[in-house]
Amino acid sequence: MMLKNGRSGEFEIRTDLALEERESFPGDGGEVSGVSLREWREETSRVKLTEVKILDERGAKAMGKPCGTYLTLEADQLAEQDEDYHAEVSEELGRHIRNLIGQLMKAEMKEDRAMPEEPGNLKILAVGLGNASVTPDALGPKVISHLQVTRHLEQQYGNGFCRKRELPVLSGIVPGVMAQTGMETAEILKGVIRETRPDLVIAIDALAARSIRRLGTTIQLTDTGIHPGSGVGNHRHSLTRESLGIPVLAIGVPTVVGAAAIVHDTVNTMIQTLNSSMSTKGMGEFIRDMAPDEQYDLIRELLEPEFGGLYVTPPNIDEMVGRLSFTISEGIHEAVF
Amino acid sequence: MMLKNGRSGEFEIRTDLALEERESFPGDGGEVSGVSLREWREETSRVKLTEVKILDERGAKAMGKPCGTYLTLEADQLAEQDEDYHAEVSEELGRHIRNLIGQLMKAEMKEDRAMPEEPGNLKILAVGLGNASVTPDALGPKVISHLQVTRHLEQQYGNGFCRKRELPVLSGIVPGVMAQTGMETAEILKGVIRETRPDLVIAIDALAARSIRRLGTTIQLTDTGIHPGSGVGNHRHSLTRESLGIPVLAIGVPTVVGAAAIVHDTVNTMIQTLNSSMSTKGMGEFIRDMAPDEQYDLIRELLEPEFGGLYVTPPNIDEMVGRLSFTISEGIHEAVF
Amino acid sequence: MMLKNGRSGEFEIRTDLALEERESFPGDGGEVSGVSLREWREETSRVKLTEVKILDERGAKAMGKPCGTYLTLEADQLAEQDEDYHAEVSEELGRHIRNLIGQLMKAEMKEDRAMPEEPGNLKILAVGLGNASVTPDALGPKVISHLQVTRHLEQQYGNGFCRKRELPVLSGIVPGVMAQTGMETAEILKGVIRETRPDLVIAIDALAARSIRRLGTTIQLTDTGIHPGSGVGNHRHSLTRESLGIPVLAIGVPTVVGAAAIVHDTVNTMIQTLNSSMSTKGMGEFIRDMAPDEQYDLIRELLEPEFGGLYVTPPNIDEMVGRLSFTISEGIHEAVF
Amino acid sequence: MMLKNGRSGEFEIRTDLALEERESFPGDGGEVSGVSLREWREETSRVKLTEVKILDERGAKAMGKPCGTYLTLEADQLAEQDEDYHAEVSEELGRHIRNLIGQLMKAEMKEDRAMPEEPGNLKILAVGLGNASVTPDALGPKVISHLQVTRHLEQQYGNGFCRKRELPVLSGIVPGVMAQTGMETAEILKGVIRETRPDLVIAIDALAARSIRRLGTTIQLTDTGIHPGSGVGNHRHSLTRESLGIPVLAIGVPTVVGAAAIVHDTVNTMIQTLNSSMSTKGMGEFIRDMAPDEQYDLIRELLEPEFGGLYVTPPNIDEMVGRLSFTISEGIHEAVF
Repeated sequence: MMLKNGRSGEFEIRTDLALEERESFPGDGGEVSGVSLREWREETSRVKLTEVKILDERGAKAMGKPCGTYLTLEADQLAEQDEDYHAEVSEELGRHIRNLIGQLMKAEMKEDRAMPEEPGNLKILAVGLGNASVTPDALGPKVISHLQVTRHLEQQYGNGFCRKRELPVLSGIVPGVMAQTGMETAEILKGVIRETRPDLVIAIDALAARSIRRLGTTIQLTDTGIHPGSGVGNHRHSLTRESLGIPVLAIGVPTVVGAAAIVHDTVNTMIQTLNSSMSTKGMGEFIRDMAPDEQYDLIRELLEPEFGGLYVTPPNIDEMVGRLSFTISEGIHEAVF
Repeated sequence: MMLKNGRSGEFEIRTDLALEERESFPGDGGEVSGVSLREWREETSRVKLTEVKILDERGAKAMGKPCGTYLTLEADQLAEQDEDYHAEVSEELGRHIRNLIGQLMKAEMKEDRAMPEEPGNLKILAVGLGNASVTPDALGPKVISHLQVTRHLEQQYGNGFCRKRELPVLSGIVPGVMAQTGMETAEILKGVIRETRPDLVIAIDALAARSIRRLGTTIQLTDTGIHPGSGVGNHRHSLTRESLGIPVLAIGVPTVVGAAAIVHDTVNTMIQTLNSSMSTKGMGEFIRDMAPDEQYDLIRELLEPEFGGLYVTPPNIDEMVGRLSFTISEGIHEAVF
Repeated sequence: MMLKNGRSGEFEIRTDLALEERESFPGDGGEVSGVSLREWREETSRVKLTEVKILDERGAKAMGKPCGTYLTLEADQLAEQDEDYHAEVSEELGRHIRNLIGQLMKAEMKEDRAMPEEPGNLKILAVGLGNASVTPDALGPKVISHLQVTRHLEQQYGNGFCRKRELPVLSGIVPGVMAQTGMETAEILKGVIRETRPDLVIAIDALAARSIRRLGTTIQLTDTGIHPGSGVGNHRHSLTRESLGIPVLAIGVPTVVGAAAIVHDTVNTMIQTLNSSMSTKGMGEFIRDMAPDEQYDLIRELLEPEFGGLYVTPPNIDEMVGRLSFTISEGIHEAVF
Repeated sequence: MMLKNGRSGEFEIRTDLALEERESFPGDGGEVSGVSLREWREETSRVKLTEVKILDERGAKAMGKPCGTYLTLEADQLAEQDEDYHAEVSEELGRHIRNLIGQLMKAEMKEDRAMPEEPGNLKILAVGLGNASVTPDALGPKVISHLQVTRHLEQQYGNGFCRKRELPVLSGIVPGVMAQTGMETAEILKGVIRETRPDLVIAIDALAARSIRRLGTTIQLTDTGIHPGSGVGNHRHSLTRESLGIPVLAIGVPTVVGAAAIVHDTVNTMIQTLNSSMSTKGMGEFIRDMAPDEQYDLIRELLEPEFGGLYVTPPNIDEMVGRLSFTISEGIHEAVF
């Protein structure tokens, strides 16, 4: 059984990347009200950075995502087996995770919630979301398997063991998916958090993208947590500050793309192509100018016969997830150790 | 790195299924010269059968495939975990493999080549093509791992051991792919055949299809062997009666589909959709009536930006290949034991 | 690094099987005070049953295990690939799990703790202990992966969904091992139990045996939970009624044996062998009659040079754990559905 | 089903290591006629080297192994996850493989057989023996999966491609085991060699050792090829210069140990222990002085009840074989590139 789209009956060109959502607005360079956009590249870095900030409810509605910061690292060569490049990305990723943790801690302190003053003293619970037995969904579980946890040392050698060594108190869990556990991920995490008292959750998840080119080459960091319908397997309940009681930093990498998205992209490109040629210009405009209903019907008809909510993944997905999970676990080590 | 299309520079909407090639001719019901087509369903069976016969050079040129018989079993529920259904398909597959072996033996005898008179006395070498470490290409190797070989019993308990028990003399090999062995598959097989003297090769390979719907649900049997550019990994040299010296029965199941094929299908469906509605009829006709060069340019432009020769596969490909490899090995057992 | 014995410095011929502990008492047929023993075989069954009951503190001290019932199923052919036999064992296992659940429920009710009156209404949390990435320790996690959980249906289709269909409310979790999570298994389970409110835990774990012959062929059921130092990976804290607040039924299968145990067995057999021959009788008696200190020193010297706390496992452990995990998950289904 | 010892009915304390065979002679420091022994350590190296040379038929009979050179690298920390150490061992291994290749080439030239003059021009076929689906037997197949083969470049870019770049012409194959292929490994290799014309075979195989301590920490290089009954899975026919027509360099690492060997070691150590203490001295001597028949009967009785021909392996064998296969493939690269 293939990954199904949550809302059957409707089609949805789903992406978990705020970056792609932002790109889908007409008039690419234009402004979207309530959404800020910044693109840059650090000196000598081969990684392209894009920060999408959803500033208010208007932005949230337009983007279909909650308010907050979405930082995207685009690193095209991640698809290749170049250890130096992967090390470079881990380092840059680590820096951005550290920044985001700093911001989350400040926000907590503003609200007068207890937080350690130094990131080195933070207690962090890393959560590997997804289904370890479905390769493209196994990214989160694999990241956890590479992490060097420390929390048990604190318990074995006495409180203060980590603090003295300026180690964070790091723990990790792979909660599994509801079809295997019969429990909401949020329930499991709430229980574990109540019992083990971390200050912060770092959740790692495999995402769905719109563009094949982004599979395994883009990393999204966000301070907004994990939301229903996001991730490769759909989560029914949020993993957020509100639901878990502590801030949630989410790290995601797209590993699947909806077949519907490929079709949608094709139609869009087709319209542009038709427009750009004098002889076919009228036709592209014709489609673009169709009433929304007609356009919807056209795309729907294109989509339905073949692929309702099908997702696809590259043939070398095992390798890709294997490599990426190392890069991300190293990024987390970089950030917290 | 994703599976690359053999001929870079050009696009090619590749399919290894004769069935899909045949469907791609305009005027679906019409005749293609040099190609016969027969569709049926055996009584009470849930499997749809299609036999494409390429009868002469004209047919071969039109289809881009060599002369011979291509039998396709379409079994939509193969994608599901229904053991009874899989057993049913194995049985039907076994029957058709047995028929095809019978035809191949007759053809050999017509040419005065030595062949045992009874299928039960055949010496068969099963060959699992593909790369065991890339999931969608691992179908062939996995089938071999499930086979009950018997040839060594003949050597251990004396010649005639198999004949007395009416067992075939079955051996199996996983030759690997050239990037891992440094040798052509044909070289390895020629050596093994010269040394072990089988009468017939059964080659199992993962294929590329055009339609996502066919992934894991369609089995193609052919008496034409394996040809360059077919299969999920491209073979540089043929595995055929000519190259190996003994007949080659090939069993293939599509496990990948080119992203290009998805785009191509979309454009075709779009043209039909535009045609079928009065208001957009002109537009569909317009595209269809474009000069071939223009049409080529249009599709090329749609294809290139995103996905040159990318192939995609479903997220649950591990499970799919696991189940199918059992179904096919059982089909072979059914046919020869 | 191989599995290490918890107490370094001393040697310990460890077994997690109460059955083997009981066998190790001198004078095999004799009585051990505070321990009852019953052996039988159900009509026509190929499974040998042994029930060891530790009745009081004296028994517990002698056996080095807590008071309670330890039921052992010995099924020698489990090592083989005989599906009918595995189905037979699953059924018999299911019956005994059901009995033990019934006893646990009665005990709860005696103490005036709330329990559903019908086993069909029980809420059960299955826990797969062990490290999924070390094959002989992966038994528990693999059992969970085969379980049909139902608890989420209750949440999706409304309370009472399971009760109406006489389904148990089954959930499952793989908590991981402390070196990977940084958390005690007991902490994770306490949190999950508090949040999801099951009535009973069924914990599945891989065990260490003394005899190679028992690897993969013996299943131990107990109502005493899991104790520190038991299982293939040592648990630091108990998983018991006391620590978790609800009864814990433990299912264990030995998958490793200490090299020390092999040596110990050899020495014992040697003494018996020497005794049974007239010419060497004196020598066996001599060793047996050595002062405990001397005997200890002798065995210690035999053990230390080569294998401190090494554990070993059969070469086909992948297959063995794969098959057994199905047999046990089917046994659980048999018991609760 | 566990690995069985070839000769049932008899017991055999099998080892594939010439080193261990040599150690088993009484009077450890003494001479064995027809066998030379040299032990050393290269400057600053953490690897202990032992060269056993079986010089004549007398030596071969005493050792139960054919004449030739057996070089053993003992590298205790190989069991650990220390990348620098593994790199060090790969380098040293590479140097010794290169030496042995040089010697084999000289021997060929002495016999007036055609051989390239420079090792850089050699055509080498690497053969990964063993069963890829049984972890401790998968060492050979895994080594091949890491090798950088080059022979196909020669075919793609023209003869001389490798020579100009001073690359060896390297190819690799995983022939499988007879129970899976129905063919003798020697048959498959003879066919492949005849077709692809290598100058030399490098065969990699998992071995059985006598001592648990050697599992995964000892590498044996020999110029004598592979012989029936050696390796983890028993080969029925030799892979030698005689059977294959070209020299065979074999690389082996022990991954299993017979349970019988553990018992045997125990008895030996026990005799020594008894002897070394004044109070028990007589007893050790008594056993040692038993008539061979009686001694045989004693050990046989100790062995049979529990473990006929059982082999055991460490619980972390997956990891061990994974790491070692890299170390060996790097050693081969070091030697030939």
